[in-house]
Amino acid sequence: MFKFNLEKTEGKARAWIFETEHGNIETPIFMPVGTKATVKWIIKEELDEMGAEIILNNTYHLYLRPWDELIKNFWWLHTFQNYHKPILTDSWGFQVFSLGNIKRPISESSPNINQNLVKITEDGVHFRSIIDGSKHFFSPEKVMDIQSNLGADIIMAFDECAPWDSSEEYAKKAMIRTHNWLERCHKEWEINEKKRQKEWQHKQALFWIIQGWIYDNLRQESAQFVSSLDLPWIAIGGLSVWESKEDMYRSIEVVEKFLPENKPRYLMGVGTPEDLIEWIARGIDMFDCVLPTRIGRHGSAFWTYGNIKIKNEIHKLSDKALDEVCDCKVCKNYSRWYLRHLMMENEILWLRLLSYHNLYFLINLTKKARKAIKEWNFEVMRSDFWKKYKIN
Amino acid sequence: MFKFNLEKTEGKARAWIFETEHGNIETPIFMPVGTKATVKWIIKEELDEMGAEIILNNTYHLYLRPWDELIKNFWWLHTFQNYHKPILTDSWGFQVFSLGNIKRPISESSPNINQNLVKITEDGVHFRSIIDGSKHFFSPEKVMDIQSNLGADIIMAFDECAPWDSSEEYAKKAMIRTHNWLERCHKEWEINEKKRQKEWQHKQALFWIIQGWIYDNLRQESAQFVSSLDLPWIAIGGLSVWESKEDMYRSIEVVEKFLPENKPRYLMGVGTPEDLIEWIARGIDMFDCVLPTRIGRHGSAFWTYGNIKIKNEIHKLSDKALDEVCDCKVCKNYSRWYLRHLMMENEILWLRLLSYHNLYFLINLTKKARKAIKEWNFEVMRSDFWKKYKIN
Repeated sequence: MFKFNLEKTEGKARAWIFETEHGNIETPIFMPVGTKATVKWIIKEELDEMGAEIILNNTYHLYLRPWDELIKNFWWLHTFQNYHKPILTDSWGFQVFSLGNIKRPISESSPNINQNLVKITEDGVHFRSIIDGSKHFFSPEKVMDIQSNLGADIIMAFDECAPWDSSEEYAKKAMIRTHNWLERCHKEWEINEKKRQKEWQHKQALFWIIQGWIYDNLRQESAQFVSSLDLPWIAIGGLSVWESKEDMYRSIEVVEKFLPENKPRYLMGVGTPEDLIEWIARGIDMFDCVLPTRIGRHGSAFWTYGNIKIKNEIHKLSDKALDEVCDCKVCKNYSRWYLRHLMMENEILWLRLLSYHNLYFLINLTKKARKAIKEWNFEVMRSDFWKKYKIN
Repeated sequence: MFKFNLEKTEGKARAWIFETEHGNIETPIFMPVGTKATVKWIIKEELDEMGAEIILNNTYHLYLRPWDELIKNFWWLHTFQNYHKPILTDSWGFQVFSLGNIKRPISESSPNINQNLVKITEDGVHFRSIIDGSKHFFSPEKVMDIQSNLGADIIMAFDECAPWDSSEEYAKKAMIRTHNWLERCHKEWEINEKKRQKEWQHKQALFWIIQGWIYDNLRQESAQFVSSLDLPWIAIGGLSVWESKEDMYRSIEVVEKFLPENKPRYLMGVGTPEDLIEWIARGIDMFDCVLPTRIGRHGSAFWTYGNIKIKNEIHKLSDKALDEVCDCKVCKNYSRWYLRHLMMENEILWLRLLSYHNLYFLINLTKKARKAIKEWNFEVMRSDFWKKYKIN
């Protein structure tokens, strides 16, 4: 249904073009996150300017408000937020982690920990709304139906991310459940696709998610299972949460040999500039992360030489650009001391400007990687990146 | 020093072109307010898009932080905020009113009311910083020097706005003081201009302010005094604060016959769409107001038919534009229900989008008025405006 053209590889690094109804996606690509149908403080013209080719929205939040049925009635997410390039909707799995204070039951035998908020069964997940405490139930089928209503180009299967302190036993249970749910998602997706293509002439592609927390054997089992299915895309989920960098890298490296060469790979929730470079080198094609807007909120900016905290006294009199070698409109137009002034005065334009730069930085990094791969120059770019970049 | 060309009049309404070093200002014109060297949430490219030709910055705030001497050292306000069209700096007078909880001493005989914050003498004003309580003193000379450091194209004389409950006696005292200060401002400005033009090849024009609170005889006396001086611009200050609409209109109408025909007129702190239309009809050329961003913050938007509160339930399912006949990028791209969704979810993009529309609305109104005046069509436009517009 989507066309995938593998244009070039260098080592394990790959450059694809995915053709969708809403335009092409050229990989490697970083996808800005717009949880509630808005990439924070940024409008579509700016997403175009910075070279974004696809954005993410969140099923869970948009189901609760304004409600997927409404969005469907008003011609889906693209019209709702006036973004007419490809959109991907995240399924609900990851939100269990990211929703603030919510702790999940560690295992089904100890469901008392906040059982009111989330309860997982084989059939699906019972939960209460973070908005008004109302009761809801998500099954794999329901999550497929909601995503069908939202109308993104790419949707995600319903998965369970095992919590950070999961035993191998619980992580295995969660993985097997995720596999069962994948199959149920697939069935429901097929039903929806028939209806969708008949009624609305609009296609949706389904992404499959590898789970298994930080247990190598589980990750491998999950990779083998997902890869054995006849499905076009594969995502690696449940990482970049609370695990160590070492665990994260190992958990992805162990599955790599099981992934089919001819399918696009999406590493969910990643990441920093260094993560992007290193995972592109290891054959990942797509990334998403809330970091650009989140660190912007705290006055941090990505920088060719590591990271800048704009509040530092050192920038008070600096008329340099945020990143001297960046050609985004923020770096071309504003000095560090002006940006610092905005932040000190709580003039929230700084949120907008720092987020813009941070998004541009990651998107631009993936674009430069793509160009380098196509010119058989990626390893040079990678080593050049590391000569300058300091993790702090 | 600036060239003023009166292009066309229709009745009392006028269309000028003012030539400045940073470009032309075509009147009637609405000037967006960027108190702390930023028009809230908006960047320069957007000010250009919406047709802004001049913006305002505030002397008081920028003196306190980051400090006018610093701004001077980094090539003045234009470079600091990267806005290279004309800039006007407001003097300190109006801030006495707008700074939140600060009540001023009603008269010099009862200085006990918050005397710590503000104390007015013939020589100038003693005050404490709203940031850290530190003591400062502004004389007319000091205010001229600060504005010279800031480097705007147009600066304002230092005036005293009489408080809302001023007796005629006190209002007269404040007016006379303002007149004395005007003369001191003028002397200091002349000294600064000689230095400025020699050292920096950059000119600044000085605006004179009519005061007199809501007392007709004082307003007339002030107008006669200011008009008798050989100065290029005249501002009407101290209104649009707490007085009734009736008092405000009368206080301006009574001075009109004393204003020279051949000088640009600036009505400070005004206003709403209806004020703009009516004051253009009465011969005012320039306006400024914080309303567009302030009402945007509360979810209100200017509308051809009056005013829209986007939070109203009625807009929940509306796929209409904010203003159906507005051609700003917000109205062309987003529905009311999407804007309402952003506001309900506290996604602060709504601040940006509503402020953009509101600024566009007022600027566009003055531009349409200008076009109408040039085509001898302003009275038709004015009556057309009132056929649709409801004050609510």
